[in-house]
Amino acid sequence: MNWAVIMAGGFGERFWPMSRRSRPKQLLAIVGRRTMIQDAAERLRPLVPPTRIVVVTNAVQAREVHKQLPRVKHVIAEPVGRNTAPCIALAAAMIARLDPNAAIAVVPADSWVGDVEKYRRVVGDSLALAAERDVLITIGIQPTAPHTGYGYIRLGEALSTQLSALSTQFWKANRFVEKPDVETAKQFLATGEYRWNAGMFVWSVRAIGRAFEKFQPAMAKSCARLAATKLRNFAREYQRLEKISVDYAIMERADNVVVANGDFPWDDVGDWPAIARHNPRDANGNVARGALAGLDAANCVVVGDPKHLIAAVGVRDLVIVHTPDATLVCHTSEAQKVRELVKRLAAEKRYQKIL
Amino acid sequence: MNWAVIMAGGFGERFWPMSRRSRPKQLLAIVGRRTMIQDAAERLRPLVPPTRIVVVTNAVQAREVHKQLPRVKHVIAEPVGRNTAPCIALAAAMIARLDPNAAIAVVPADSWVGDVEKYRRVVGDSLALAAERDVLITIGIQPTAPHTGYGYIRLGEALSTQLSALSTQFWKANRFVEKPDVETAKQFLATGEYRWNAGMFVWSVRAIGRAFEKFQPAMAKSCARLAATKLRNFAREYQRLEKISVDYAIMERADNVVVANGDFPWDDVGDWPAIARHNPRDANGNVARGALAGLDAANCVVVGDPKHLIAAVGVRDLVIVHTPDATLVCHTSEAQKVRELVKRLAAEKRYQKIL
Repeated sequence: MNWAVIMAGGFGERFWPMSRRSRPKQLLAIVGRRTMIQDAAERLRPLVPPTRIVVVTNAVQAREVHKQLPRVKHVIAEPVGRNTAPCIALAAAMIARLDPNAAIAVVPADSWVGDVEKYRRVVGDSLALAAERDVLITIGIQPTAPHTGYGYIRLGEALSTQLSALSTQFWKANRFVEKPDVETAKQFLATGEYRWNAGMFVWSVRAIGRAFEKFQPAMAKSCARLAATKLRNFAREYQRLEKISVDYAIMERADNVVVANGDFPWDDVGDWPAIARHNPRDANGNVARGALAGLDAANCVVVGDPKHLIAAVGVRDLVIVHTPDATLVCHTSEAQKVRELVKRLAAEKRYQKIL
Repeated sequence: MNWAVIMAGGFGERFWPMSRRSRPKQLLAIVGRRTMIQDAAERLRPLVPPTRIVVVTNAVQAREVHKQLPRVKHVIAEPVGRNTAPCIALAAAMIARLDPNAAIAVVPADSWVGDVEKYRRVVGDSLALAAERDVLITIGIQPTAPHTGYGYIRLGEALSTQLSALSTQFWKANRFVEKPDVETAKQFLATGEYRWNAGMFVWSVRAIGRAFEKFQPAMAKSCARLAATKLRNFAREYQRLEKISVDYAIMERADNVVVANGDFPWDDVGDWPAIARHNPRDANGNVARGALAGLDAANCVVVGDPKHLIAAVGVRDLVIVHTPDATLVCHTSEAQKVRELVKRLAAEKRYQKIL
């Protein structure tokens, strides 16, 4: 049967001060009406019912995940973040015990998808292919700009799927490329042979299990044991796992990696200006989630509380975020630095309450 | 004896959202530790005791004035603002009944003075001169920049004061000039013959009484009657008075106007960037009254609550003001527009609570 793993372990530092450690961006409604993790579950619903969704999150967020997704029963609360490989291995080991024939879609909790029907078709076709073949599928997004913040995947030869029902195109993966410079990214776009690595994977529980056994045998063994028992010292065991991404640990090493053609609009919603891309703008290009009074204000992203007025006068290209105990004012071109700011605040005792 | 009238009728729109109708800038501690009106009273203290200070304010602010200046007994609460002439006429009429030989200093509640000792010398000398002669003294501030936001006064011939104790220089006033353009202001500075009109006046109660009788006979008559009786219909009577400044009504018409040399640093604290001039800056030129965490932030003026963190990332030349129900983000060069913003908000019912 189809299963899904929703990866929701991030702390959303770049969305501070709205995003806090115990309620980061994936648990906030910063794009749509629902929270991002609710949107992620809803997008999967026709393919995977909530009862077959496993959410990987962390100790401080688990309660809020339960609250927002009451029908999801499988929630793994990481005692400590170990990047994506260990939690995927653990989730796969858990699912293997419940459903050895499972096909699994692994998706992030905090990305935006512009065409849910296309998304469902691509993920559905990938689940169907994964159920039939020993492949590790990564959903490669068709690039729309020479983005330097994403990894790229070069496409190899087209896959003959021989499954007549599948309308999604698949290729063998040729190679994974880390975040390129802008010139390289432009070349990638021009060739048409590259896709963005969006951190969305589909595989059978058998295929990913075999891959972990081959490339990460120690991790596979530990996770099988963690999945089998309710260990008292789960936290200590988990902490020992290698901190490594599934891309490094598996995808860049395996020879059965397949790229699905992710031809739907997609955005990783990486920082505050991304909010502007997915919310309506007023005549001056301002995007307001909350109460904004602008006077000669343009291209600002304003996020707050409808009961707290934010007045912007004679400013442009600003992100303004109000919360009851902290306010952020940031130039849109510097929004990536919010993470650095949060790291600095984290070093000071007096700011612990607002992180 | 020496008296003083502190003019505190403004609504401080340009200091919104910190400044509200019922608690505008003169009732806030936005420059020093005390509120501006407390500073104004303290500056006058050696010359005029609180018992001989008359504060002119308005109905919504009177209670707070009493609270901040408990020793001041004479508070005129204007039912409606009529500019400076009517309230000065009324205060003078009230003082005339208590002390017909009074010399009166009229000062705004909301200006900043950089050298209190010099200020006291100039105001004290002016009170001494006013007690002796039938003159209307305006304290002219030595300009330090070609400011286009102030009116200017051209100096006439020097006054032979014949009062040996006075070290302040006085001149006859040659003419009043309205806010000039920047080129004209530069010429004014170059000649050395101009002073800023700071809205600070000194005269005997007799001299100003005669001036009102001569130039504003109806107003003089009404105010004498208002001062003499506790009229039930004070508000209605007051509302009938002509809305006119004392500059237009008296100073530009009288031939006995004298300019005192205001050689102390002075600022009318007209908008948020003025706060930066009178508060310490950090290494990046930021001024914070409240809690600021800056990352690549420069030349910002941040005003808030020490318990609410304002984080500024990759921005410069901004005014950021936080209050519990409204936040302002404004470019420093556009700070004068805050007044226009407040007027727009005032036109909408939903914003009445935050004005």
